[in-house]
Amino acid sequence: MRLIAEIFSQGEEVVSGQTLDSNAAWLAEQLTELGFKVKRHTAVGDNLDDLIALCQEIAVRADCCICSGGLGPTIDDLTAQAVSKAAGLNLQFDPRALEQIQHYFSCRQRPMPEGNRKQAFLPESALRIDNGFGTAPGFALRLLRCWFVFLPGVPTEMQGMFSTLVRDDLLRRFKLQADNLVTIRSIGLGESAIAQSLAQLVLPAAVQLGFRAKPDEVQTKLVFPAGFPQTEKQACVSEAAALIGDFVFAIDGLDGEQGDLIAVISRLMSAHALSLAVLETATQGLIAAKCVTQPWLKAAEICLDLARISALWRIDASGGDLSFVAQALAVELQTKHHTDFALVQLYIGETADYRNKDRPIVLYNALSTECGVIASRQALAGPLKNKQNQAALLALDLLRRYLQNKCL
Amino acid sequence: MRLIAEIFSQGEEVVSGQTLDSNAAWLAEQLTELGFKVKRHTAVGDNLDDLIALCQEIAVRADCCICSGGLGPTIDDLTAQAVSKAAGLNLQFDPRALEQIQHYFSCRQRPMPEGNRKQAFLPESALRIDNGFGTAPGFALRLLRCWFVFLPGVPTEMQGMFSTLVRDDLLRRFKLQADNLVTIRSIGLGESAIAQSLAQLVLPAAVQLGFRAKPDEVQTKLVFPAGFPQTEKQACVSEAAALIGDFVFAIDGLDGEQGDLIAVISRLMSAHALSLAVLETATQGLIAAKCVTQPWLKAAEICLDLARISALWRIDASGGDLSFVAQALAVELQTKHHTDFALVQLYIGETADYRNKDRPIVLYNALSTECGVIASRQALAGPLKNKQNQAALLALDLLRRYLQNKCL
Repeated sequence: MRLIAEIFSQGEEVVSGQTLDSNAAWLAEQLTELGFKVKRHTAVGDNLDDLIALCQEIAVRADCCICSGGLGPTIDDLTAQAVSKAAGLNLQFDPRALEQIQHYFSCRQRPMPEGNRKQAFLPESALRIDNGFGTAPGFALRLLRCWFVFLPGVPTEMQGMFSTLVRDDLLRRFKLQADNLVTIRSIGLGESAIAQSLAQLVLPAAVQLGFRAKPDEVQTKLVFPAGFPQTEKQACVSEAAALIGDFVFAIDGLDGEQGDLIAVISRLMSAHALSLAVLETATQGLIAAKCVTQPWLKAAEICLDLARISALWRIDASGGDLSFVAQALAVELQTKHHTDFALVQLYIGETADYRNKDRPIVLYNALSTECGVIASRQALAGPLKNKQNQAALLALDLLRRYLQNKCL
Repeated sequence: MRLIAEIFSQGEEVVSGQTLDSNAAWLAEQLTELGFKVKRHTAVGDNLDDLIALCQEIAVRADCCICSGGLGPTIDDLTAQAVSKAAGLNLQFDPRALEQIQHYFSCRQRPMPEGNRKQAFLPESALRIDNGFGTAPGFALRLLRCWFVFLPGVPTEMQGMFSTLVRDDLLRRFKLQADNLVTIRSIGLGESAIAQSLAQLVLPAAVQLGFRAKPDEVQTKLVFPAGFPQTEKQACVSEAAALIGDFVFAIDGLDGEQGDLIAVISRLMSAHALSLAVLETATQGLIAAKCVTQPWLKAAEICLDLARISALWRIDASGGDLSFVAQALAVELQTKHHTDFALVQLYIGETADYRNKDRPIVLYNALSTECGVIASRQALAGPLKNKQNQAALLALDLLRRYLQNKCL
């Protein structure tokens, strides 16, 4: 019998629909991976009676509940008060919590507003959960059947605290038998195209297959029950990855986590002490921005006016095959900056097309390497910001493909 | 007293976190706009007992509940069955529903799979809601206090049916009075600092004040009840905005929506046919990327190595007051690109500090204008991507402040 978990989100902005409750989905995924059976999500607004009633309901229904939101400094943040009422406990001042809140502000060279003092009051006997990512400390306590964990609603804080502190604590507290999730991470192929590539894949009945499209990648998920033989697991994953092909940039959950596209590229660039120069057009700085603090990016140029490329580079970018132009520019850029690689992005499309979600723009990427120039071409549609993001990722993916597959 | 509404989502993919429950947020926003007080969202999986229990809970708690999901043709679609059990009603074959399902398939020149016949069975006495967007008809019925509306989980079908049929039906059934939400949007001041600035604000008892911190801004929300006098409303909003000060970049809900920081800047730049050049360091392209497709951005440069600024610009950027250096560079950049404005960002901080969420980096922004140079300085801490995003927004905000307040 699986242990039952629930998710509870607090906030008027969630319950009124102004904010999409992404915390609930993220937490549910984490708890499912740990081996809980998540049975219910509930969201309520900033109302003391509703919060108390909900805590008391969940206390008799679930083994574990993770709550997010309502720990902020303002009067509409009521979670600690509601929990203390529901549990019949007083709120107690926690000097360590206050120190940490003060530290947060002193790092930012700002005085702590008096209102933040409220965040240092926690239900007596509760376990404090330090917040290394913001001001609001979390806390945890048992109420009847259920172990409640309260975290702030800001996703970075909530996710940081869960990943660094709460996850391990839950593993110690509960006897969980987690499924093993393997995630095949790919870029450049849609969810349904991947599903089609995998149509011929025959998996053992106990293994579940799922997909999830995210802004930066598509994830193909294989869930293996606890105790599934390792060699058979590896065979299933290899077969699935081979069917998806070289769109796959990382596989997580088999030998640890490999990180996102930038992390994968970064490891390979650093391992071989390689350097890159970039020239961006359509993405207008987003390729460089995604590489922020990466020492292997040596130079980044943004060209806002394709016509000016001709003048600047004495190359005819106005007509003909833009892929050729991109390739010629990549060689020039590599020479100019003395880098191991140079990545050039050009595109065809009016501003009006770029802004129109139903119109495509066509991108030409070229990567100059020590073994010659490789190129790619993509048509991208969708809202402006999606096109821009995809364009940046697909340009960088040309480098990833080279690094993973060629010459090194 | 406001009528109470709840939202209920059904589906294993929602409760396990594989799917973000965007239906709940969408429906909650619609119901709030109609004048309901949405008090709770709940999501449960494909389990008959859980569904029955939830219907019975909501039936005594809410005046109206909109449910999405679980109306599909497969065996894990249990909503109609659960509702009929919860209400003590039989499922009844509805020949008009079957005709519509058959029509859907014949339009697509495909035979109707036998499984879809199940979708024509609805609880007896329920009101059928025709689905002009897919196969699953919806239905509605009263259970004790609550009017339940059941819609399919596919967002296009759910939204289409709600907008064309359900909304008007609810307006006929319920006597609703919608609130008016005014949002004061600001940047550069935290949620608690804003709350402190507003401590002296005395609002009429009927007006609610709330805050919402988003990655790109902090929103201060004032909710006015229906029929609140317009002049008094304007006075409340003006007073609140004045207390927050020139951190405010837009006010939504008084005379329409003004959009985000880029939209506000863009309107002002376009109205006066102005142009901008940027030199980025810490943000590494993100300022330019945020201005994608904006014609007033004429030139964008990225400097990855602060030491190279000295050589490139023949200015000593290595020591002394970085704010002075930024100001001198801004003037040079403006001259170089012949633009109305030039924005320069410099910073102090090692890569290790930038990546460390507990270490600050200090940014120096300078904006050269036709009336001289203005400058700002900020210390930013937090995770790398947050620092980068805040740095980009605060640099652009210097331009926004100038455009809104000065010389034009």
